Amino acid sequence: MIKITVVAPANIAFIKYWGKRSEKFRIPLNDSISMNLSGAATTTTVEFSSAFEKDDITFSGETISEKEIERITTHLDRVRRIAHKKIYARVVTKNSFPKGTGIASSASGFAALTVAATQAIDLRLSEKAVTILARIGSGSACRSIPDGFSWWHAGKKSSDSYAESFVPSTWWDIRDILCVVSTEAKKISSTEGMENIRTSPYWQERILGIPEKIGRVQQAIKERNINTLGSIIEEDAISMHCVMMTQKPPLFYWNDTTLRVMEGVYALRAKGFPAYFTIDAGPNVHIICRSEEEQIIVEEMKRINGVQSIIVNEPCLGAHSISSHLF
Amino acid sequence: MIKITVVAPANIAFIKYWGKRSEKFRIPLNDSISMNLSGAATTTTVEFSSAFEKDDITFSGETISEKEIERITTHLDRVRRIAHKKIYARVVTKNSFPKGTGIASSASGFAALTVAATQAIDLRLSEKAVTILARIGSGSACRSIPDGFSWWHAGKKSSDSYAESFVPSTWWDIRDILCVVSTEAKKISSTEGMENIRTSPYWQERILGIPEKIGRVQQAIKERNINTLGSIIEEDAISMHCVMMTQKPPLFYWNDTTLRVMEGVYALRAKGFPAYFTIDAGPNVHIICRSEEEQIIVEEMKRINGVQSIIVNEPCLGAHSISSHLF
Repeated sequence: MIKITVVAPANIAFIKYWGKRSEKFRIPLNDSISMNLSGAATTTTVEFSSAFEKDDITFSGETISEKEIERITTHLDRVRRIAHKKIYARVVTKNSFPKGTGIASSASGFAALTVAATQAIDLRLSEKAVTILARIGSGSACRSIPDGFSWWHAGKKSSDSYAESFVPSTWWDIRDILCVVSTEAKKISSTEGMENIRTSPYWQERILGIPEKIGRVQQAIKERNINTLGSIIEEDAISMHCVMMTQKPPLFYWNDTTLRVMEGVYALRAKGFPAYFTIDAGPNVHIICRSEEEQIIVEEMKRINGVQSIIVNEPCLGAHSISSHLF
Repeated sequence: MIKITVVAPANIAFIKYWGKRSEKFRIPLNDSISMNLSGAATTTTVEFSSAFEKDDITFSGETISEKEIERITTHLDRVRRIAHKKIYARVVTKNSFPKGTGIASSASGFAALTVAATQAIDLRLSEKAVTILARIGSGSACRSIPDGFSWWHAGKKSSDSYAESFVPSTWWDIRDILCVVSTEAKKISSTEGMENIRTSPYWQERILGIPEKIGRVQQAIKERNINTLGSIIEEDAISMHCVMMTQKPPLFYWNDTTLRVMEGVYALRAKGFPAYFTIDAGPNVHIICRSEEEQIIVEEMKRINGVQSIIVNEPCLGAHSISSHLF
């Protein structure tokens, strides 16, 4: 068998995923669009061997819960089932960023795990098939596999719900300036939070408006129009957080620093700089801008009280293997 | 003629008013429910005289804009028209709280002005008719006229859209602990902001859900059930702010301290204290609680960074005259 190491980026959704049609297969209620993030990656090494007596899962530099280990072994079971092989794996994983803060660590994690495990067990799957498998592990993980800018087609059944690149990472040299305002783990995970989407009076309106936004955001990226892209992503992020906040119980992911960064972005725009925010299921704020404005925006954000660190990302490749050794 | 001095309270909406059916007559899209606030009042003295050559409007301790003066003289014109008298007025007004911060200064102001002006010009109107007239001046002013807890019936035409008390101020000794987090005037007034309500994808769902909430909130007040009342008002406040934030352009009334106070309220509840927040069209947070918990909640809120002052309110009478002098 071979030992495969895969690096997979986190991704930032421009049109967000919130709510599932099927809990079991993680089929979402709506299409979503994302960009891979060069500065936030998971590196995972997988090795299968008949010499192993059980799965051995290690996170370097982090402790993980029994529940997370079980989610990973369940995913390895899926890979073994497809490959018709009953052998255990050794998995070593490392994140370049803190877990559970709304940086999509489960996205990059399950993207890396799926690509590494399928290659290590010698499954030859199409990219589409790998995105479907990754999606069953963690929904938005499917978007971290294709190159650059991904479109996750919601689909209606598992085989329809996959991600593909619609423009490559080289298409547009924009930035995602990630302002980390909290490194604490979220009280409510996305998986748990989105189970209650239907308790919000607004969820159906949100879903109804998505197809038109998907078209507009793709057009804006194809035209490299930062102002059009920015205003759609800000609108979509707010609209998702309003669904969350109106759920029962209400789900508040913003904190006071989140709000100060949002105000900082409005202030930048008032001064003429094209900067736009988006916020995943967590308190951290991603600022989308052109490469030309990167420096000034980073400087402005450093001054905001409560911003703990800043990670500058550009679009990048999806999950890909960086080494393989026969032995 | 007589000189009349009226004191009118601000009011806090438990079920909020946002959006009009008719701009001109200020007929709202939905019914609303409120409580008069003992600690935030406007005192207005009105005197009509054929000796005056024009309206003379003074705000003690504050400067007011031409636009505000015009809004007041337009309202005096309505009173003169109904009374069939062409005489000018001298108006002196004083607020016990800062203007334009989401404390409903135009509510208490137009309630006091309407009651004082109609009495000074010797119009004998029913309370219902006075609330209708006040509403045309400033929508939520109609709720500051009846005693204690008001129900503003949206109606479909001007003569249907009035407020009445559904339980008196003596019914329930609860508190509204107003945490002032900003005394700056709002960038966008409520009047201006709500003109865009129909640009939110969520406004219709909000309106559809109101009748049921009106019934539940009245029931909770009648039963003096703080937990039921509190959870409905929190839900309604968040739902209104989500409509505002999803308008085009988005309307953000919260600031970072607003969010810290909201978190403080959640923390109080986690400790077992029945405290619930509501937020009008501004950054200030009102905490609704029983009199028993007033002291502990005030102490907790004083510790929150950014809380500039705290005003403790109880339910009180609506607009009423406090002096009249024949001369």
